[in-house]
Amino acid sequence: MTVDLSKFVASIQDYPEEGITFRDISPLMADGQAYRQATEQIVKFAKEKGVEMIVGPEARGFIVGCPVAYELGVGFAPARKKGKLPRETVRADYTLEYGGVESLYLHKDAVKPGQKVLITDDLLATGGTIRATIDLIEQLGGIVVGCAFIIELQDLKGREKIKDYDTLVLMEY
Amino acid sequence: MTVDLSKFVASIQDYPEEGITFRDISPLMADGQAYRQATEQIVKFAKEKGVEMIVGPEARGFIVGCPVAYELGVGFAPARKKGKLPRETVRADYTLEYGGVESLYLHKDAVKPGQKVLITDDLLATGGTIRATIDLIEQLGGIVVGCAFIIELQDLKGREKIKDYDTLVLMEY
Repeated sequence: MTVDLSKFVASIQDYPEEGITFRDISPLMADGQAYRQATEQIVKFAKEKGVEMIVGPEARGFIVGCPVAYELGVGFAPARKKGKLPRETVRADYTLEYGGVESLYLHKDAVKPGQKVLITDDLLATGGTIRATIDLIEQLGGIVVGCAFIIELQDLKGREKIKDYDTLVLMEY
Repeated sequence: MTVDLSKFVASIQDYPEEGITFRDISPLMADGQAYRQATEQIVKFAKEKGVEMIVGPEARGFIVGCPVAYELGVGFAPARKKGKLPRETVRADYTLEYGGVESLYLHKDAVKPGQKVLITDDLLATGGTIRATIDLIEQLGGIVVGCAFIIELQDLKGREKIKDYDTLVLMEY
């Protein structure tokens, strides 16, 4: 028996700014069956790609990627903002959806050269965070074999930034 | 075959401040076998407690708790800092290890009254974050049946703040 995952997405009007409808997947994560079902879909995609490592951007990317890593028996590495990783890092910059520039970091030993990596996050929006995460992995010689998202916001055209990468999306808005 | 988890902890001298040795579990998470083994130990503890929901504080608590939630088939709810949760929340304040006051938030619908909740985090240090997470869950009527950590820093005496709660620790320093 499967559940309709879209029933576990909360839509918040005018958040974080007027005119924006925020899609919140926290109800999906809070429901054991929905969370398991979403994870299993990503696991299936990851197995087809021969994934050896998962990288997720801070912080909802961890919630999506960590159970996938566990089920596959592979490791998970967080891509984090400034000052959050204590050891030597690589850095990539990106433009924020609502303006400004932000940086993401990854520990230098998080990904090994030639390793097949899956990137996970909750939302594909403008694609800035994911593009930065790809850059981090490729700086370390890793091979991004796929990107997996719970939700794609199609109007924001993030898919164009990652068109060279196989992408799994569970729900589109 | 099991691995020695302590070999997957990086110790960083004088971080984030002089005189502090930071214990970084990112090598443990990045190794599929070590991550799986740590998760399985927490899953066993959680099963004994009849856990129905996992709550982890931002952000390393997600990495510890999410695979446990997946394996148990229960939900996961993040306890987050200000401005990170888009819907109605409860709030709890705590004192930071290196000075100052911080707040944590939990969505009001994250935990149901009477639900048996496990809290997960990477480190038990002064216990401030965990005490705030307990407060959030109890404000919502949830029952904290246990706390699980990868590492306890015994000198910081965090255990005293949670002495009424069953606690699992995988490694002590």
